[in-house]
Amino acid sequence: PVSTTQVAPEFAGSLDGIGRTGTHPLTRLDENQRLWAYEQRIKDAFARIVPTLKSIAARVPDAGFEDWAQAEARRTLGFELPESLLADAWVAGLDRRALFAHATFETVRAMSDDYFTTDPLDDRGQSDEFRRFLLDCGFHAMNVTPCSDGRLAHAIRYVLRLPMGAVQRRANAGALFDVEEALGRWSAVELGRFREGVPNTADAPTRYLKVVVYHYSSRDPEHHGCAAHGSDTRQAAAAGRERLRAFREAVENSYCCGASIEGLLIGIDTDTDRLRLHLPDARGDADLDRFVDAGALHRETARLDPEAARALIRERVANPSGGGLAPAPGMQRLIARLIEHNISQLDYVRDYHNGHYTDIGHEERFIGVGMDFAEIHLRNLTYFSFLRTLEEGACNLDVGIKIFKQLNVEHGLPVPIVLRFEYSGQVPGARERAIERCERLAEAIAQRYPDLAEHGLLHTYWTVRDSQGNGRLEPVGGSLLGGRTA
Amino acid sequence: PVSTTQVAPEFAGSLDGIGRTGTHPLTRLDENQRLWAYEQRIKDAFARIVPTLKSIAARVPDAGFEDWAQAEARRTLGFELPESLLADAWVAGLDRRALFAHATFETVRAMSDDYFTTDPLDDRGQSDEFRRFLLDCGFHAMNVTPCSDGRLAHAIRYVLRLPMGAVQRRANAGALFDVEEALGRWSAVELGRFREGVPNTADAPTRYLKVVVYHYSSRDPEHHGCAAHGSDTRQAAAAGRERLRAFREAVENSYCCGASIEGLLIGIDTDTDRLRLHLPDARGDADLDRFVDAGALHRETARLDPEAARALIRERVANPSGGGLAPAPGMQRLIARLIEHNISQLDYVRDYHNGHYTDIGHEERFIGVGMDFAEIHLRNLTYFSFLRTLEEGACNLDVGIKIFKQLNVEHGLPVPIVLRFEYSGQVPGARERAIERCERLAEAIAQRYPDLAEHGLLHTYWTVRDSQGNGRLEPVGGSLLGGRTA
Ligand SMILES: [Zn+2]
Ligand SMILES: [Zn+2]
Ligand SMILES: [Zn+2]
Ligand SMILES: [Zn+2]
Repeated sequence: PVSTTQVAPEFAGSLDGIGRTGTHPLTRLDENQRLWAYEQRIKDAFARIVPTLKSIAARVPDAGFEDWAQAEARRTLGFELPESLLADAWVAGLDRRALFAHATFETVRAMSDDYFTTDPLDDRGQSDEFRRFLLDCGFHAMNVTPCSDGRLAHAIRYVLRLPMGAVQRRANAGALFDVEEALGRWSAVELGRFREGVPNTADAPTRYLKVVVYHYSSRDPEHHGCAAHGSDTRQAAAAGRERLRAFREAVENSYCCGASIEGLLIGIDTDTDRLRLHLPDARGDADLDRFVDAGALHRETARLDPEAARALIRERVANPSGGGLAPAPGMQRLIARLIEHNISQLDYVRDYHNGHYTDIGHEERFIGVGMDFAEIHLRNLTYFSFLRTLEEGACNLDVGIKIFKQLNVEHGLPVPIVLRFEYSGQVPGARERAIERCERLAEAIAQRYPDLAEHGLLHTYWTVRDSQGNGRLEPVGGSLLGGRTA
Repeated sequence: PVSTTQVAPEFAGSLDGIGRTGTHPLTRLDENQRLWAYEQRIKDAFARIVPTLKSIAARVPDAGFEDWAQAEARRTLGFELPESLLADAWVAGLDRRALFAHATFETVRAMSDDYFTTDPLDDRGQSDEFRRFLLDCGFHAMNVTPCSDGRLAHAIRYVLRLPMGAVQRRANAGALFDVEEALGRWSAVELGRFREGVPNTADAPTRYLKVVVYHYSSRDPEHHGCAAHGSDTRQAAAAGRERLRAFREAVENSYCCGASIEGLLIGIDTDTDRLRLHLPDARGDADLDRFVDAGALHRETARLDPEAARALIRERVANPSGGGLAPAPGMQRLIARLIEHNISQLDYVRDYHNGHYTDIGHEERFIGVGMDFAEIHLRNLTYFSFLRTLEEGACNLDVGIKIFKQLNVEHGLPVPIVLRFEYSGQVPGARERAIERCERLAEAIAQRYPDLAEHGLLHTYWTVRDSQGNGRLEPVGGSLLGGRTA
């Protein structure tokens, strides 16, 4: 019998250990197919950018060049290129960097429009059920901070299989979220319960759940772990635990009357998407050495029928091997559910990625900064950092710029940065202030990385979105457009 | 009979109109004496800096120089100068800019320590009574945004005669406060009512009061009004009204169930400290053309006995001449009280400043940035700007730097900037994060004004303070100290 807990933290297992054939009884194949179709479609759209631009750049800008290039772009990319760039090509040469940035931004925009208008991952369909489940488990909100690393950009919708909309995401480098921001967010949720009974009234004995997701690489732990923690898995986990504790103490000490939160520490193996869910220690903090391992439970329950598999998972969570403390009952249910979710993802990685990703390093296509991008759910697509101002979030963006210097700048390509601020469409002036935020942040970025910005090696694309409506993003300016356009 | 409302906005009256002899029956002479003693004491401390440094700089740095200079500094300023500056004087000359910045910062520190340990303005003594009065008027919180202009730095404690502690202050250039920040602050107050019944329970039908204080100059309206509004009094007032409306709509639209706030627009003549309190229009916003003028009411009630004077003030507020709308009853009481408070200040300016200030322009001694400095209550002492990051608040600080270029830099003196972030001592890590904020903000300031910083013409002094205790400020570093020291 395989132990599901007390696996050494350096545990180097990979998915090779899980069954090579057959699907786990709890795996949702329909969902896997939907997610795979989406991943392929979007990744393909980004993958077409370079070959298309290469072929356009290969033609001498003769008389028919502009029309031909636009037709090529429409045909392979689905959008046009800026006319002025093509028109000036015969004089100054084609500005390939600007073309690349433009194509990246238009691809982001198309992906975003698609997400908000067609709900391709069925987030809306699944949100209500999961919200009810969370409440049943005793949680009236779930706020997740993964690392900004692009290899966790799919953590919510793929690895944890959570519907966006039922949870909040706040990515930060090293998963080191801002305690004061988190406290403000907690206050807003609590006030909603008191004032409006949303999602439940304040007298219900439920809690706000904060989740920290750190990561490590089972295949190459010393080089491809979390950059913010020097690829030290234990340090990444310990830092997450400390931040959760600081947040809990901030809530407890800022408000009396038993105010508190619940914390959960999760680790992801970025090579296989395998989850480890940490168990509590005697103080109620996450125990760094004790966790439930979804990969081991996948193996252990692979040949059972669904109900028996679920029962065994619940049993393993309620009675951790090694005999330590178990989570509270509501948390047990949530953890069991997350393991079940992750089992689908383990089969997904096995079926579509041969059990482990080939891109174990960084392969992001663009950087996202500002508020969370609800539409981003693909691994290695985006390095994302939640920040209000560069002054507070510079350390997050510095890591992203460093990654993109290797990915893009070394090959002569610019760093594409998409800015996003949400606003409440019901609040007069809020849209205007969101646009001003974009403007201010873009200026700060250009000032922080002048060498890149001056050589066309960094471009920004400014977007805002009405958080109240289910609206699409609205592009309001950018460096390619000479600043603000809305 | 003098009309107390519908005075033309360009109203150029000065205190010359109020009685030259005799004290108004409602004037609190004891309070005036206390405030005057404080103003003299603190202003004198700052005024001694330049003569003392001048005399020290005049002596050739001979053998006895260091001991003598320290004795001089102790005797006239009450603190010592940095030893290294004196010791190096014989080689490199005396670094007069660093000495000036050091002396300014130490004087701020002494003033601050004095304020927090001796309560010289009796703020603590008067806070409870005023909080109760506010509640009686139907307001559970009062949050005031004056312009950052140093000529309004005494607005709370002198012009409005409000005890610090019973109200909150958020100074911003042009009184243009950040609506999202205000919304967050409102949420925190409401959550406190729901969770802890502080200051009253949420079911009590009281409101959060937001006050905007704009300013103008009666003596030289076109040059010495609000710089942020081009010295245009009407524009300053209109901008304040718009910001109040935006905040009210933000609250109403972000929360349902009748959430709202109350707004009050006040104008101050910075030459005389005379108040105008705007009356409501039909939509509930401030009417730019209708206000109650405290100067006119001072004159009108100067010969009555106290109760008759109070009654007439109440009558004038309840039945505005011209017959327009009156404020709601609770607001009437508050406005009448503020007029009574301002009457003391009008006599103060008459008695101690000959009816109008001689420094009608800027004469600030230092710039304050960050969280509000609870200890600052003197006119023309501080240009203060409330900001979390320079990225968001740069426009506020730019105005201050412009002022200090004229005041100091043109005379070879540096711009002294005091940074302040408060933290809750009960929240683990909060002090450390406040110190990091200082560090980050100081770096951003040095980067924004490199010409000043590199030539020793800009110095920062970093302070934090535990908002929970009634603690003193804690200096944690600064440019003179080479960065962080705590
Ligand atoms: Zn490696
Ligand atoms: Zn990481
Ligand atoms: Zn003038
Ligand atoms: Zn002003």
